[in-house]
Amino acid sequence: MPADLSAVPLIERHRGTLDKALEAVRTRAYWSPYPEHPKAYPDSEEGRAAFEALLGRRFELDQPGTVGWTGGERSPYGIELGVDYPRPDPDVLLPAMRAAMPAWRDAGPEARAVVCLEILSRINTRTHEFAYAVMHTSGQAFTMAFQAGGPHAQDRGLEAVAYAYTEQVRTPGNADWIKPQGKRDPLSLRKSFTAVPRGIGLVIGCSTFPTWNGYPGLFASLATGNAVLVKPHPRTVLPLALTVAVAREVLAEAGFPPDLVCLAAERPGEGLAKTLAVRPEVRVIDYTGSTAFGDWLEANARQAEVFTEKAGVNTVVIDSTDDYRGMLSNLAFSLSLYSGQMCTTPQNLLIPRDGISTDTGLRTYDEVVADLATAMDGLLGDDTRANALLGALVNPEVEARLDAAPGLGEVALASRSVTHPDFPHAVVRTPTVVRLDGAKPDAEAAFMSECFGPVSFAVAVDSTTGALELLRRTIREHGAMTVGGYTTSAEVERLLEEICWEECAQLSLNLTGGVYINQTAAFSDFHGSGGNPAANAALCDGAFVANRFRMVEVRRPA
Amino acid sequence: MPADLSAVPLIERHRGTLDKALEAVRTRAYWSPYPEHPKAYPDSEEGRAAFEALLGRRFELDQPGTVGWTGGERSPYGIELGVDYPRPDPDVLLPAMRAAMPAWRDAGPEARAVVCLEILSRINTRTHEFAYAVMHTSGQAFTMAFQAGGPHAQDRGLEAVAYAYTEQVRTPGNADWIKPQGKRDPLSLRKSFTAVPRGIGLVIGCSTFPTWNGYPGLFASLATGNAVLVKPHPRTVLPLALTVAVAREVLAEAGFPPDLVCLAAERPGEGLAKTLAVRPEVRVIDYTGSTAFGDWLEANARQAEVFTEKAGVNTVVIDSTDDYRGMLSNLAFSLSLYSGQMCTTPQNLLIPRDGISTDTGLRTYDEVVADLATAMDGLLGDDTRANALLGALVNPEVEARLDAAPGLGEVALASRSVTHPDFPHAVVRTPTVVRLDGAKPDAEAAFMSECFGPVSFAVAVDSTTGALELLRRTIREHGAMTVGGYTTSAEVERLLEEICWEECAQLSLNLTGGVYINQTAAFSDFHGSGGNPAANAALCDGAFVANRFRMVEVRRPA
Repeated sequence: MPADLSAVPLIERHRGTLDKALEAVRTRAYWSPYPEHPKAYPDSEEGRAAFEALLGRRFELDQPGTVGWTGGERSPYGIELGVDYPRPDPDVLLPAMRAAMPAWRDAGPEARAVVCLEILSRINTRTHEFAYAVMHTSGQAFTMAFQAGGPHAQDRGLEAVAYAYTEQVRTPGNADWIKPQGKRDPLSLRKSFTAVPRGIGLVIGCSTFPTWNGYPGLFASLATGNAVLVKPHPRTVLPLALTVAVAREVLAEAGFPPDLVCLAAERPGEGLAKTLAVRPEVRVIDYTGSTAFGDWLEANARQAEVFTEKAGVNTVVIDSTDDYRGMLSNLAFSLSLYSGQMCTTPQNLLIPRDGISTDTGLRTYDEVVADLATAMDGLLGDDTRANALLGALVNPEVEARLDAAPGLGEVALASRSVTHPDFPHAVVRTPTVVRLDGAKPDAEAAFMSECFGPVSFAVAVDSTTGALELLRRTIREHGAMTVGGYTTSAEVERLLEEICWEECAQLSLNLTGGVYINQTAAFSDFHGSGGNPAANAALCDGAFVANRFRMVEVRRPA
Repeated sequence: MPADLSAVPLIERHRGTLDKALEAVRTRAYWSPYPEHPKAYPDSEEGRAAFEALLGRRFELDQPGTVGWTGGERSPYGIELGVDYPRPDPDVLLPAMRAAMPAWRDAGPEARAVVCLEILSRINTRTHEFAYAVMHTSGQAFTMAFQAGGPHAQDRGLEAVAYAYTEQVRTPGNADWIKPQGKRDPLSLRKSFTAVPRGIGLVIGCSTFPTWNGYPGLFASLATGNAVLVKPHPRTVLPLALTVAVAREVLAEAGFPPDLVCLAAERPGEGLAKTLAVRPEVRVIDYTGSTAFGDWLEANARQAEVFTEKAGVNTVVIDSTDDYRGMLSNLAFSLSLYSGQMCTTPQNLLIPRDGISTDTGLRTYDEVVADLATAMDGLLGDDTRANALLGALVNPEVEARLDAAPGLGEVALASRSVTHPDFPHAVVRTPTVVRLDGAKPDAEAAFMSECFGPVSFAVAVDSTTGALELLRRTIREHGAMTVGGYTTSAEVERLLEEICWEECAQLSLNLTGGVYINQTAAFSDFHGSGGNPAANAALCDGAFVANRFRMVEVRRPA
């Protein structure tokens, strides 16, 4: 770790990575500077030891206005973490954060970008430690916690930095403006343009993907000159507390006030986000979570730019396929990954009741559902593989929804409990698939709202046309983070595209191999569209960064 | 006028202009494709005749859902225009506009940009006609109506098209994504990215600068694929009705549905904007006008992206100068132009009561105010020049405020009526300057709210430090479109900059020549900052265009 982190060496160290990120978002080709395989990171045991050393003690951050300590996280794998975090007095902390901003603003877009890249780089070297922190708060299986919580989250943070940098340097720092006046002297002005922050960015974390969903907003706000207050989900504090600690360390070493990044921890039910969100100092908010609180933020935090990812109902239209086995195995994996606890997991599979055409002949609705259940049984039949895919249920509410699912319709695939060899108290459950008749109003009441967790609905529809109408209505009324389609018909493809263009949803067609509808890759895929009720922003685009700062011009005679 | 406007010739005709606009917003150097001098446009008499031919008859637009006719505009110069415009049934018009959108979306960003440039180009050739329409609705003097309502407005429209184009082509139309998998075959996807419109953009026009303030939103929404419904101020319909007519003509000739641009006219007091603003089809709103209605739109039109320019209180801090005469004449012009009816006109001149240091020695507060009054008298003493600078008062409310101004404090410069040789019923009045003591609460009540029109306050403050504090508070609490400063002190300059960076306002320093604080140049100056209460958007930047469309991705196995 370097003793001196002044801006020049950081530019030398990270400018190349920044340029590659800028190029990647322009081409949308595959790219990542952060390897995703755990073996690429040599410090596996050190990482585990570092994680374990955090447990059962105070997490010191040395930030202003600490008036007590709060904690209480319990791993979905059954471990009490026993970590206590500083509880802040906003009346002290927020003014201290504001006071830190002018120096950060004056540093300019490039210095801010490379400091952000140093933070990400240092997080990257501790990926094993972060992976354990993500695993034991979100309940993700280790490999997923490692990849989605580590390099993939770091990718999304870097992507946000790249967009933020581009947006700020679209306008030059200075310009000479000389307007001809015919035979008279020209009018001549010297103009300076400064990207100024809006204020404090509040990041309200979620319990399932604390880093992946938290980093875009955190780094977008920080790279545009704002201070950032991170308010993690009270059940999932540790990964973001580690992030804040690294950010503060790097900022201080680089000669900036560490209070540009602070933590606001709370106990469950305290409602701290509601208090912080309407503070006048808070001018940007990033939120991932329930529709109810997302809508509340949009309606009430009027002093802030509010970016929300809320609930949606993700649909797959199954019309036909030329790779029936590939479709089934791809869907089985998508429905199982992290026990369906992804905002991108498909919920409603719309299947014509008369069946679909496949490379193995016509398959009726009953057959498709049964074959999917068989595929999922095969995928999850082995407990070791099931544990590696499913992870643990993140909270009792998910388990309650899973337990209630059989009451909604006819169970096509029942959930079973899986024993975890290392964690006997982990709640690991395989997904359930419930058959519903799309023509029945009570069925519609079930499938037309988000049932977050390992519950999917095989919805029988009258025809592909009916499926498309239902898809449109679902997106328009309830939003969607993802839409899937399986079809061999060019006409159905065209109609699926048209609906997704008109209703503004991201579409994956005919995925049968190793790419899954619920996964998006930074620098290439947009996560959400920002144009339907599931989210008012996409990760990551110009709109995600452009209003986090403003450009202030000073002009004077040349 | 060409018979065939298919996209290819339009690209040939306008791509070069688009590229120059893209370059200009990158460098912020002086540039415009539209000459500002009336003599550059040969058809002066034809333009006047064309304007006169519009009067006293129906303005036909052939748009769907016309259920009647409405009008009633009266020129501030005393002429009844007698033009009737179609009154729409939104339940017919809005669905027709939505139906026009897919073809426009499918055309792509470049085709949309060059169609917009053709619309602007054709408006440009009719600048004389538009100038009369702007003059006889807004009350601007002819030269200003010509320049601000013509080429300068066209510049701002083109600037919005350039930003919209850039934003949409940041993501490529297609990409191949190939992710290595070690020894296994790579994962490979073909991705398409489509800029999709949000829906219908509603442009709510203002009475003073119908084209200048209307074109940025209109062209930003149209260039990003939206349909645009223009709801002009009921007193200022004609310039925007002409704009809609030209847009419809060009769209139809280029093979697109003309209903992509429609007019919604109303009589004063009908409140049509309030009805339209909350229609579900309306997804973008651009508004210039009162703070009360702007705030209402932001709070209530929650289904739309809302861009507002509202009221502000513009301040000039007068600390010291090395060109006292230049400062006085520059301020005199700024306060007089269009009778102070610009959102950028300075209102509060903060002057230390002990005086300011100048190149002609110390000048006390009393002397500065008296010298400014003398400069304004000199500037406006000749009726011909006064008429050319002042124009007419846009409405009786402005006149009432002017008449009430002497009740607010001690009059330093009284308003006088000016006779217009051509229009005996025009209400032309010179500006008043009122002395106020910044230390007195009742004075503060007067100068701390917008007094739109030819009323300025010479506010005596204890010191420059007091002026700076008052400036900060004014911007923070009431917003500002412009801030001015006169100082020879590097320290005061630095403090002015710091306040404007922190409170987010555009600063003009030491203007003493032919550039005025109330004028901004497209492609170089930002109009508003979008970061203080006067406006939630700036003209024009990435944030002004980035959320008018969304990017929808379709991915499939390669």
